[in-house]
Amino acid sequence: MTEFRFEPLARDGAARTGRLHTAHGVVQTPTFMPVGTAATVKAMRPEEVAATGAQIVLGNTYHLMLRPGAERVARLGGLHRFMNWPGPILTDSGGFQVMSLSQLRRMDKDGVTFRSHLDGSEHRLSPARSTEIQHLLDATITMAFDECTPFPAEPEVAASSMRLSMGWAQRSRDAFVARPGYGQFGIVQGSVYPELRLESAAALTAIGFEGYAIGGLAVGEGQERMFAALDVTVPALPDDRPRYLMGVGKPSDLVGSVRRGVDMFDCVLPTRSGRTGQAFTRRGTVNLRNARHQDDQRPLDEECRCPACRSYSRAYLHHLVRSEEVLGLMLLTQHNLTYYQDLMAGLRGAITAGTLDAFAADFEAEQALGDISAL
Amino acid sequence: MTEFRFEPLARDGAARTGRLHTAHGVVQTPTFMPVGTAATVKAMRPEEVAATGAQIVLGNTYHLMLRPGAERVARLGGLHRFMNWPGPILTDSGGFQVMSLSQLRRMDKDGVTFRSHLDGSEHRLSPARSTEIQHLLDATITMAFDECTPFPAEPEVAASSMRLSMGWAQRSRDAFVARPGYGQFGIVQGSVYPELRLESAAALTAIGFEGYAIGGLAVGEGQERMFAALDVTVPALPDDRPRYLMGVGKPSDLVGSVRRGVDMFDCVLPTRSGRTGQAFTRRGTVNLRNARHQDDQRPLDEECRCPACRSYSRAYLHHLVRSEEVLGLMLLTQHNLTYYQDLMAGLRGAITAGTLDAFAADFEAEQALGDISAL
Repeated sequence: MTEFRFEPLARDGAARTGRLHTAHGVVQTPTFMPVGTAATVKAMRPEEVAATGAQIVLGNTYHLMLRPGAERVARLGGLHRFMNWPGPILTDSGGFQVMSLSQLRRMDKDGVTFRSHLDGSEHRLSPARSTEIQHLLDATITMAFDECTPFPAEPEVAASSMRLSMGWAQRSRDAFVARPGYGQFGIVQGSVYPELRLESAAALTAIGFEGYAIGGLAVGEGQERMFAALDVTVPALPDDRPRYLMGVGKPSDLVGSVRRGVDMFDCVLPTRSGRTGQAFTRRGTVNLRNARHQDDQRPLDEECRCPACRSYSRAYLHHLVRSEEVLGLMLLTQHNLTYYQDLMAGLRGAITAGTLDAFAADFEAEQALGDISAL
Repeated sequence: MTEFRFEPLARDGAARTGRLHTAHGVVQTPTFMPVGTAATVKAMRPEEVAATGAQIVLGNTYHLMLRPGAERVARLGGLHRFMNWPGPILTDSGGFQVMSLSQLRRMDKDGVTFRSHLDGSEHRLSPARSTEIQHLLDATITMAFDECTPFPAEPEVAASSMRLSMGWAQRSRDAFVARPGYGQFGIVQGSVYPELRLESAAALTAIGFEGYAIGGLAVGEGQERMFAALDVTVPALPDDRPRYLMGVGKPSDLVGSVRRGVDMFDCVLPTRSGRTGQAFTRRGTVNLRNARHQDDQRPLDEECRCPACRSYSRAYLHHLVRSEEVLGLMLLTQHNLTYYQDLMAGLRGAITAGTLDAFAADFEAEQALGDISAL
């Protein structure tokens, strides 16, 4: 049986590459996890997700507990089998989405009671139930149930929210059923306050998890304050455990965060943007709805290996987006995920070669050039 | 250069197999053409369309002339290159969809003036312009511009409509630019009246086309009257040219029409149904929205080779349909097209083996059994 284990490899400054060994395979880090909210990375077959280079995907506990239901997924053999993704899956705890999506929430010291946004039915999430649901889903990586502190928050509010989450982290750990190759991550909170971040990191490492996430960022504080929070938090986390920055982010967020020692990311940006006609490229973002693409025979990104760039023109992608054709979101999602994965591969290569500073400078310079269609 | 040529092969009663040689490749007949309305078979990559077994697809002149525009497609290298489908493409004439989709139509003896359903802009289609547009699109097979006679129609109405279309067929032929490997089909009209169908077939064969379509059916007359019209019309068409039944149909329509000597079909049913959760299987149609599938680990169709049947459970497909996930329509479209193509391959094999009657009897018996989930 494979033990759940993080193996740091090359280092360049605070950044590192590594291998995360799990029951469902090895993940090379730094890694980006596509979001598969409702047991599917939207508009992508799992083989296509794998072909982009993704090695681990994320599932959303809130969505899956409501539909199709955690007990049903367990009866059907777990999430991997259900969605035909044999690789590692990380599930979030549901806490964040209860706050953003559900109706009629009542929070108490032990958890939160809410009504489903789908049918109004009443449900409850607590540290124990969230952990149980993730076990039923057969998540490779289970996240501790926490409260995502809103931004901005006064220091006292941020402190009490963080301390509530630390209590819940202990209860989540108590409810976790350890199995070889499976792991559970605690989540550092504390808003933008260094002393709270340090207190939270210390509390979680005292409990002991297989990995540590940094939560409550990318919620409106801006890149500068996000990076500042990383500068404080990352050094306070154990070097031999993976560090996961939740819900981040733009390509420049990934580059800056990897430089600060982050190993794992997830974000809806590449998949959601693909559905609105926005593409990420080596020359910055491109909006394919724009009429300037309608006669453009060039590929979206000359250097990209994905099918959207290899087999189609900007003119065709523009036509698909304007016509609201499903193939448009299929191809753009595939492109965006490929771009993200290739960026992560580039970062891993640069760390291994000890050239991360140059890689980051080149990345910023190329992004700043702007799209070829705008010249 | 390949000549456009139909090569009849095996025969079984009125049915025959054949090879249609075109500039863009060979099509084995009887064949089913998936509909690629707006330069895409909805929710399918072209490689996936080909993997279902499809060898030729259909494009809609009405949609393409409005968006992205025929002249634009020509500037971009033609429809094959634009949509990344190197195989044969048949385009309809636009006549049928002008009548069903456009606004403020004014028909005269030379054509029809209409406003786009997209932006209200005014356009005109005539035999010459429709033929020119299909040339600009680089259609492998161009259809003559006709009026699809409504159903029901009194004999006098059906006769004058048919005779108008025969005049337009001559003008369409005059406007057709002959090129090696490209062909143009005339369209038999005449509603349900045998003498009108025969008059139309005679008029078209006098003009001379590379193939003949049977139009104005599957418009509400029912399968029995459709088959009766085929029984009259097919023998009146040249044996050495392909026969194409437009807009048909259900699986049982295909079986019955092949038995009556039809070589080519197109229909939105497998693609449109896939988008609403309806699947065609060897045991009849299955609605995956139905709650009885929610815990069903079995594949949609045990005998199907498609990814939806090989890698996923009915429970998962049900979940995708209920959640309105794009992957659901991707997988169901792929399944339905695979089912249609496998049915055509089965028909070709039975004709070759001289066992078409037995094949048709088995088909009807299996369809009548009903879906396994309903037992």
